[in-house]
Amino acid sequence: MTEHRVVVVGGGFAGLQLVHSLKGAPVKITLVDRRNHHLFQPLLYQVATTVLATSEIAWPIRRLYRNRPDVTTLLDEVLGVDRASRTVQLKSGEVLEYDTLVLATGARHAYFGRDDWESMAPGLKTLEDATTLRRRILLAFERAELTNRTTELDAQLTFAIIGAGPTGVEMAGMIAELAHHVLPPEFRKIDTKRTRVLLVEAGPRVLPAFSEDLSAYAKSALEKLGVEVLTGKPVTAITEDGVTIGDTFVPARTVMWAAGVQASPAAKWLEVEADRAGRAVVGPDLAIADDPNIFVLGDTASVIQDGKPVPGIAPAAKQQGAYVAKLMHARLSGKPVPGPFRYKHQGSLATIGRRAAVIDFGKFKLKGGLAWWIWGLAHIYFLIGTRSRLAVAWSWMWTHMSGLHSARLITQKESLKDES
Amino acid sequence: MTEHRVVVVGGGFAGLQLVHSLKGAPVKITLVDRRNHHLFQPLLYQVATTVLATSEIAWPIRRLYRNRPDVTTLLDEVLGVDRASRTVQLKSGEVLEYDTLVLATGARHAYFGRDDWESMAPGLKTLEDATTLRRRILLAFERAELTNRTTELDAQLTFAIIGAGPTGVEMAGMIAELAHHVLPPEFRKIDTKRTRVLLVEAGPRVLPAFSEDLSAYAKSALEKLGVEVLTGKPVTAITEDGVTIGDTFVPARTVMWAAGVQASPAAKWLEVEADRAGRAVVGPDLAIADDPNIFVLGDTASVIQDGKPVPGIAPAAKQQGAYVAKLMHARLSGKPVPGPFRYKHQGSLATIGRRAAVIDFGKFKLKGGLAWWIWGLAHIYFLIGTRSRLAVAWSWMWTHMSGLHSARLITQKESLKDES
Repeated sequence: MTEHRVVVVGGGFAGLQLVHSLKGAPVKITLVDRRNHHLFQPLLYQVATTVLATSEIAWPIRRLYRNRPDVTTLLDEVLGVDRASRTVQLKSGEVLEYDTLVLATGARHAYFGRDDWESMAPGLKTLEDATTLRRRILLAFERAELTNRTTELDAQLTFAIIGAGPTGVEMAGMIAELAHHVLPPEFRKIDTKRTRVLLVEAGPRVLPAFSEDLSAYAKSALEKLGVEVLTGKPVTAITEDGVTIGDTFVPARTVMWAAGVQASPAAKWLEVEADRAGRAVVGPDLAIADDPNIFVLGDTASVIQDGKPVPGIAPAAKQQGAYVAKLMHARLSGKPVPGPFRYKHQGSLATIGRRAAVIDFGKFKLKGGLAWWIWGLAHIYFLIGTRSRLAVAWSWMWTHMSGLHSARLITQKESLKDES
Repeated sequence: MTEHRVVVVGGGFAGLQLVHSLKGAPVKITLVDRRNHHLFQPLLYQVATTVLATSEIAWPIRRLYRNRPDVTTLLDEVLGVDRASRTVQLKSGEVLEYDTLVLATGARHAYFGRDDWESMAPGLKTLEDATTLRRRILLAFERAELTNRTTELDAQLTFAIIGAGPTGVEMAGMIAELAHHVLPPEFRKIDTKRTRVLLVEAGPRVLPAFSEDLSAYAKSALEKLGVEVLTGKPVTAITEDGVTIGDTFVPARTVMWAAGVQASPAAKWLEVEADRAGRAVVGPDLAIADDPNIFVLGDTASVIQDGKPVPGIAPAAKQQGAYVAKLMHARLSGKPVPGPFRYKHQGSLATIGRRAAVIDFGKFKLKGGLAWWIWGLAHIYFLIGTRSRLAVAWSWMWTHMSGLHSARLITQKESLKDES
């Protein structure tokens, strides 16, 4: 009997959990990702806002499987899937044969039909997104220090964040901290405390996934940090010069997008039904309708439970990866397969600046300083590897005690042409 | 009396030492750099070879002077100097008036008239240089794993480093370590131990600034790591496909340049005499010939002592910065000015891989493991700030104990257009 070949595309939370949980199964796994690293996306905003270094939240995927000879890692891109021949075409020319195919390729920002906004208002999904935002934020203060024109100064010191989910709230809080508490002693001409941070949300409240009282707390905590929270305000235009909120134009040189996501094209590769955000529709076993050996997981999949979509967060992706591994273990050993996938919501967490957080465990809700500590410990626990845990714990402790941010690098585009 | 205005261009070792030593002087300092960070260049090769993270060896210049209200930091570029009006023109449009001008703008790689080689064989001077090299090195192994053609495999697994000064020796040693000791368990198809690392030097021996026996030791230590040391071999051509050494073409996808430097254009701005490498000729007080209030320091200056040029290394730059500060303190207080600048050579250090180093203190020479520890402690001591010292010490300890490299990120060019 030849070994069962599993091709996993995507080294995010769902893909890695699956590979992890398949340990010991009689399979040969090929894991394909177009990046060489797994990224701990929940802390990406801390790279963008100069608290953490890039290498503290990203790990070479290949290194994670040093001791797993059953896992082959490929840095490559998927061009398409041929379901008839059960193969995946890669950009390098390689063609991978599969018995089971798992697509967990994540999502990118969605601009609701306004793709021209992307260059003006980048989102936050990759390490490059984070260093781009970091560069833009730091350069805005540098340019403010250099200008002699008041209108330019005001525009450079105005930051607009579109979308008040956890990422938007976390970015707004950290930029306000930076402007009001970290940077003031470092500039001679400008007063960085004059910085305006606008958090713009089309819906009625910030953190809509949280309970109403936590949402209200988050709003007042943000306002205490100096963030202007504008709810019920749709953004109608974004240009190089600023952002139009409803009918009002606000000059702003730094605009950030945290308002929506679009799934990667897995549904197109498979030619299966997708929802409005491009997520492939899957059944209760997370396989697509007409092939029990093709699974779609994480932000790429539309999983409906009790009439509601399962949220696009790390714990949901990990639970899906673990479920498919369990299903495959059962199938391969001829044991009864588990029942349908059930997402177990463990809670929603979001931080506001350096000292406060909100946690919504459903019955149990928490806000303020203690919530921040729990949030911090939970995130350190979920980081991969002892080294990263210690490094992040150390960076946070240092930031907390010294009030300084350490990863404040502007890395610029080089003129040198490079092949990649 | 108006305050004495000092304009310092360049936040490298010379510029920062000068600003540091001017503390308490009755001056108003403006420090201009086109990067927002000071870079600890002696450890840059460790970023390129995945041991250290970028933020561990770079510090926002502005943060260093939080508590120095006499120092204004500007992120800007010099367009020119007008000596008649005693002003410096900046790219932002700002014009800075000076009473004393200090230019310490460093050097870039020099390709001896073959500037077309730069894109094929990048050097190592900036953080972007280091992340570019890191990306190329890591991608070579990834592409080797993906190819099915033996010739392509061999070319991807061949690394050529041109120039066997400390940077070349350190890069060669670390790439060999990576290929022979770190990466082997992580690849399934290729044997990374087959990697060839060529260290190509036109001169007769590696580390020419060191004594002959240390140079011989370095050569044999490199060979023990698996590096092929080719001395007395000039490179005659570099293409996308490889490098021609003498008359022999060697297919190599990754070529690195560590063979020569060219000073930044300070001499041109000042319209003063320069040496072959573009360094401004300065007198024994480090001022230019016809203006005692304009100083040129570090890699930008040609300082001749006992008939030999002072080397372009960090300690020389720092001594020059300290000397000019002392001179200015004396001038401003009307005290006798110090005698001519004397460079005091404290020693030459270079590492070979993760376990060995050579140290040449003149009378006292050291090689091997103990030298490595002394090298490490010296470099940690010279890093700026407690946090960086602890972070680097920790990274090294981890690398040493675990045998893993942690900062192994391939950060790619994004398609998103960005303004900077």
